[in-house]
Amino acid sequence: MLSDAQYPAANLAPDECWELLAGTTEGRLAVSVRNKPDIFPVEFHARDGKILVRTPQGEMLVELTINPSVAFEANGRSEASAWIVVVQGTARELQNWSEIDAAQQKAQRPWTPTAKGSYVEIVPTGITGRRRPVDTQMDAQE
Amino acid sequence: MLSDAQYPAANLAPDECWELLAGTTEGRLAVSVRNKPDIFPVEFHARDGKILVRTPQGEMLVELTINPSVAFEANGRSEASAWIVVVQGTARELQNWSEIDAAQQKAQRPWTPTAKGSYVEIVPTGITGRRRPVDTQMDAQE
Repeated sequence: MLSDAQYPAANLAPDECWELLAGTTEGRLAVSVRNKPDIFPVEFHARDGKILVRTPQGEMLVELTINPSVAFEANGRSEASAWIVVVQGTARELQNWSEIDAAQQKAQRPWTPTAKGSYVEIVPTGITGRRRPVDTQMDAQE
Repeated sequence: MLSDAQYPAANLAPDECWELLAGTTEGRLAVSVRNKPDIFPVEFHARDGKILVRTPQGEMLVELTINPSVAFEANGRSEASAWIVVVQGTARELQNWSEIDAAQQKAQRPWTPTAKGSYVEIVPTGITGRRRPVDTQMDAQE
């Protein structure tokens, strides 16, 4: 297999990024309060150019109220390649039942059943993605 | 398999977090400039209570110069469970050759060969981790 140096990661077009996001439901949300970043794992559904996140974490929601600017990341891999997509945007907690209902219906797959969770919508201001070939020898060591 | 609601994620002790971090080299670093968070994929080595990151991305280094507060995340899974570790801390680019030499030698495994890269050291102010059982049925859909 070629190393990154010999075969650099390729940038993905926004359409490809959205397609990859549609294929997974595990992501990470970075928030920042008083310029101190934090990261939370989230379950998400990407659809219609927006990202819907569900989180049981109250701490994250408090931080979003103070500063709605977020970065979101998801990644995945197939046998041949690994990809990563990063979205910058603005987050807003869904507050009323009609919005939450719509969010639940927009999900192509059911959300993981949990005791409770809040829904957050991310409207992107930027989306970038990269794909690189997987170095199977490296990965076997992990 | 039990769902998260029936079998909630367990918190990990700091020692367990460091052990898990030592077993992987792919992580994500969240930085924040003017309270706008961003996320970058990074290769890392965790050792001696610090995290050493290598990055080819100049953009990230500029952001770290403006605001050294960072959050770092890595995750992984075995057949039975999935884990995530999040570290909050302060980042500093290694500037002189003796530090870079030490960083290279501290890595338990060789860094992925790349054309060039800068080394960043993260001194943690907090570390938390969680482990949950893997829902194989859910994962098969992904």
